[in-house]
Amino acid sequence: MKIAVFPGDGIGPEVTRQALRVLEALDLPGLTLFEGDVGGIAYRRHGHPLPAETLEMARAADAVLFGAVGDPACDGLERHLRPEQAILGLRAQLGLFANLRPATTFAGLETMSALRPEVAAAIDLLIVRELNGDVYFGDKGTRTLDDGQRQGWDMMAYAEGEVRRIAHIAFRAAQGRKGRLVSVDKANVLETSQLWRDVVNAVAADYPDVTLEHMYVDNAAMQLVREPGRFDVIVTGNLFGDILSDQASMCVGSIGLLASASLGERATDFGTFGLYEPIHGSAPDIAGQGRANPMATILSAAMMLRHSFGREADAARIESAVARALADGVRGGDLGGDAGTAAIGDAVLERL
Amino acid sequence: MKIAVFPGDGIGPEVTRQALRVLEALDLPGLTLFEGDVGGIAYRRHGHPLPAETLEMARAADAVLFGAVGDPACDGLERHLRPEQAILGLRAQLGLFANLRPATTFAGLETMSALRPEVAAAIDLLIVRELNGDVYFGDKGTRTLDDGQRQGWDMMAYAEGEVRRIAHIAFRAAQGRKGRLVSVDKANVLETSQLWRDVVNAVAADYPDVTLEHMYVDNAAMQLVREPGRFDVIVTGNLFGDILSDQASMCVGSIGLLASASLGERATDFGTFGLYEPIHGSAPDIAGQGRANPMATILSAAMMLRHSFGREADAARIESAVARALADGVRGGDLGGDAGTAAIGDAVLERL
Ligand SMILES: CC(C)[C@H](C(=O)O)[C@@H](O)C(=O)O
Ligand SMILES: CC(C)[C@H](C(=O)O)[C@@H](O)C(=O)O
Repeated sequence: MKIAVFPGDGIGPEVTRQALRVLEALDLPGLTLFEGDVGGIAYRRHGHPLPAETLEMARAADAVLFGAVGDPACDGLERHLRPEQAILGLRAQLGLFANLRPATTFAGLETMSALRPEVAAAIDLLIVRELNGDVYFGDKGTRTLDDGQRQGWDMMAYAEGEVRRIAHIAFRAAQGRKGRLVSVDKANVLETSQLWRDVVNAVAADYPDVTLEHMYVDNAAMQLVREPGRFDVIVTGNLFGDILSDQASMCVGSIGLLASASLGERATDFGTFGLYEPIHGSAPDIAGQGRANPMATILSAAMMLRHSFGREADAARIESAVARALADGVRGGDLGGDAGTAAIGDAVLERL
Repeated sequence: MKIAVFPGDGIGPEVTRQALRVLEALDLPGLTLFEGDVGGIAYRRHGHPLPAETLEMARAADAVLFGAVGDPACDGLERHLRPEQAILGLRAQLGLFANLRPATTFAGLETMSALRPEVAAAIDLLIVRELNGDVYFGDKGTRTLDDGQRQGWDMMAYAEGEVRRIAHIAFRAAQGRKGRLVSVDKANVLETSQLWRDVVNAVAADYPDVTLEHMYVDNAAMQLVREPGRFDVIVTGNLFGDILSDQASMCVGSIGLLASASLGERATDFGTFGLYEPIHGSAPDIAGQGRANPMATILSAAMMLRHSFGREADAARIESAVARALADGVRGGDLGGDAGTAAIGDAVLERL
């Protein structure tokens, strides 16, 4: 079990530390940890947010545990040197095309959401976001038009194979859940979306046990407010997935609790190579104060055990320890409580 | 006052009828109405969702009152013949580049939203969406790659002048409201957004009395759930505006109440040429039953009086009549009530 740990910036190192304590407590066979620099800290130490040695370390591992990147001191840098490029670079270089973001309201936290408690309580969905294509990774640039004006441009595109592989992931995820899949696109306007829709329809033939519905992205953004409990699995492209997954995660009340997995195609001994990270950012305003809630990172480590190491039982142990800590009233500052980073780590460890 | 009326499909004709009753009751000088076909009905009558004579009628008018388009019977048609193309075509052909979508929670309706009442009650925002550019109107197509796969693609782009003119509209709108503008983009990934941000920053120099903030679209989608009351004016591109404006409109509880204006550059005698439409769709499931809520279309007619005819007092009269009808408990089916289309029209007329 070789895990590359990239703590990153801001609260990244603090929350990653607690996730490692949990992993170490599980007595995993052959657990080996390597630590690498990413983000602003990597830029300062090596002149690049994703140094070659970090990338090599990821390639040599079975999984990556990622903290957070983002550093206000880097705001003035050119885009390709900014901390966020580390995560975009890892996704591209490691072929991490499938981003899984579960959003479930924890028992006892129904009142933390801006949604009415009964609306929030019903949320139990999984967003499957394509992560290697779309307007994120197409050609882009700035050019001068004939009339002398500057124009910024970005190419949006999806090829059949890219849509097919993410569609299979989503259909399989739906089979393991409630059997309902909503594919989100903007096929009334975009050719990229029309192709997306055609391929998803073709893949659907392999999964007669899953109910497929297509939804335009503007409608999906509405339905996620109106009745988020109606969704089981949502599959969508990189750009729409970025927007909808953040929207969905806020619906459950706090992004301090939400984990994510980004999976590639490479098989490990017991699963699939992947990168695991909390969906929250580096929160520079509270960095270094021991106040960040590490639960999202701890839950990301659980996803790692499930998807990269085939250790479902250990994953479930971690998840239920977090759920019990929350049910027992352990609350980080993000939930209006005063439990600090280490105290939350202790609380989860005690309940493992 | 020449108004082209395009009722369109589904509930479009019913709701438009009530808006016309309100306009006619106002005793407007020289009010002249022309009626044209758009959408599925136009396809059936003329073979095209936006016939040339409809476009000519719009060009000859000072303003367009638009109902709704969308017809399930047209689902199998090629994209360029589908009803939605009528509205895209009107926006493009008439140069309607500025879409204004106010979202305000009406007094007494705080409990209709999926948001907690106190969160919903605080919503009073205006989305200014660019409507003539972005990935909507760039080159697009489907091609076959070297390896034989098909790929769908769409070009996203904004030129300086396109951003500048919508930015001016947004800054001026903010001056007339609480003086706060949030510009939404994805500048950490998109060149189009980086240019957008640069131009908005440059335009800001002309409006020292407006506070400008930039926000990534994923964060904006979160904040619109977490604390929508923090927003005053939001300015964004065509695609992000499509998503965020629908999300925001659902936050206030019903899209049966929300109006929109799409303004061009052509001056009329007392304002600007524009198209006015409810943001809801054609709702084919309840069409022809007299059950649709016409308030959004009535409020769109009010926006028309304000922006195309400089009749602020008449606009305010309509808006307060609608607000009083709601405060008096008049509720359409969209709000769980049983007032029909004509009864709601009556209720507004009585309170004018
Ligand atoms: C940091 C940024 C480039 C990234 C994205 O847009 O994918 C982030 O928002 C995310 O969702 O992981
Ligand atoms: C019908 C569709 C093409 C349109 C859009 O995407 O602009 C609609 O969603 C809107 O917002 O007016």
